[in-house]
Amino acid sequence: MTETITVRGFLGGDVRLVTTDRGLPIATFRLASTPRRFDRERQTWVDGETNWYSVACFRSLAQNAHATLGKGDPVVVTGRLKVRRWENEHGQRGTAVDIDADGVGHDLTFGTGSFVRLGTGPG
Amino acid sequence: MTETITVRGFLGGDVRLVTTDRGLPIATFRLASTPRRFDRERQTWVDGETNWYSVACFRSLAQNAHATLGKGDPVVVTGRLKVRRWENEHGQRGTAVDIDADGVGHDLTFGTGSFVRLGTGPG
Amino acid sequence: MTETITVRGFLGGDVRLVTTDRGLPIATFRLASTPRRFDRERQTWVDGETNWYSVACFRSLAQNAHATLGKGDPVVVTGRLKVRRWENEHGQRGTAVDIDADGVGHDLTFGTGSFVRLGTGPG
Amino acid sequence: MTETITVRGFLGGDVRLVTTDRGLPIATFRLASTPRRFDRERQTWVDGETNWYSVACFRSLAQNAHATLGKGDPVVVTGRLKVRRWENEHGQRGTAVDIDADGVGHDLTFGTGSFVRLGTGPG
Repeated sequence: MTETITVRGFLGGDVRLVTTDRGLPIATFRLASTPRRFDRERQTWVDGETNWYSVACFRSLAQNAHATLGKGDPVVVTGRLKVRRWENEHGQRGTAVDIDADGVGHDLTFGTGSFVRLGTGPG
Repeated sequence: MTETITVRGFLGGDVRLVTTDRGLPIATFRLASTPRRFDRERQTWVDGETNWYSVACFRSLAQNAHATLGKGDPVVVTGRLKVRRWENEHGQRGTAVDIDADGVGHDLTFGTGSFVRLGTGPG
Repeated sequence: MTETITVRGFLGGDVRLVTTDRGLPIATFRLASTPRRFDRERQTWVDGETNWYSVACFRSLAQNAHATLGKGDPVVVTGRLKVRRWENEHGQRGTAVDIDADGVGHDLTFGTGSFVRLGTGPG
Repeated sequence: MTETITVRGFLGGDVRLVTTDRGLPIATFRLASTPRRFDRERQTWVDGETNWYSVACFRSLAQNAHATLGKGDPVVVTGRLKVRRWENEHGQRGTAVDIDADGVGHDLTFGTGSFVRLGTGPG
């Protein structure tokens, strides 16, 4: 199956935009999410450990995310999770945790905004 | 358990804001989501039937959603699903499908925006 | 988009199995899920209100669910949410909340089991 | 926030059960999930790359999963995603992708089973 995931978090840096040889815009950014959990022993809410993701956006979402988002911004991201093993030319290996985003927006829990509709679509 | 759900869709109307007797801001709006599915017989993508939700936002999210969102806007909403039986004073019964939102944002798939951070918080 | 949802809950009745004119097996059952939430005022965990779903299974999942599951069984169900308006021949209207299941299993939180693999597939 | 995730996949090995000094049973297993995606150019469904997870179960779920599941079994797993940086005593660093499971069951898409309820609970 495809694992879908939704993350509310904060951008760890600015959005990087590249265009592939075939003309496909791809935007990427780092995303940090820190869970709150209830500590039964201490009977209070505490911060858990932070999850870090690499988020990739494609096509119009890539261009609009690059034009709109910046480091530290609070966002809602929903997309498909990819857990990948990698090995570089030096023989080093690791695991990458990526989200191919389907939708991204500023989280209105933390502020207000404006919006300019581009292109066509339903609604 | 609590069912968490994420919906990408469009506002079916404007956001209504009320404040309870105890001073809690609550914003509500209707949200429509139309799935795309691959029709194997016709070998093409087609629209499925639309899901309609009633979304409720609380506290700062209520105030900011009311100040920011309008009818027809594309949004990403994540929250907790509630499926409720109701019966009114005339004996009529029905089912309500609500989402108590944890995060809401304009979906940057469909446009660009600006954002003004309010209050305090991480990031 | 298509809203995916996962529910941990208990069967409200037995599984009903029908076969369509075209030979497609469809199994349906009622599923109840009761959330636990932390009550800040009372500083304790309490039961929330129960969500009720109608779950539909197709093909091999329909036949195996019918052969395996019974009323009261604890299960994990994952699938696609459908929120539908209906109107019957008497002019009555309502809302139905269905899950088209992709995967269903007895929840091992509550017991142990055995399993017999049928047919082919990966793994 | 806490990222909840549901995975349908197959056990990559047997379940390992340990008990902590404080008497908490913990079961772990590897889980592989391979997405199917529609290839627009070739107009057909193809296998995507496999996601690998380390799943941890606690308390009764740990004991029952250990008693019930084996290598190659198809399962539905739902829980909380954890993406962790690690560094060992040799200075090597990496990323671990874990799921703390809330519910696990044999996926009835692939077979039939039996179930023995243990302990108490709703339903």
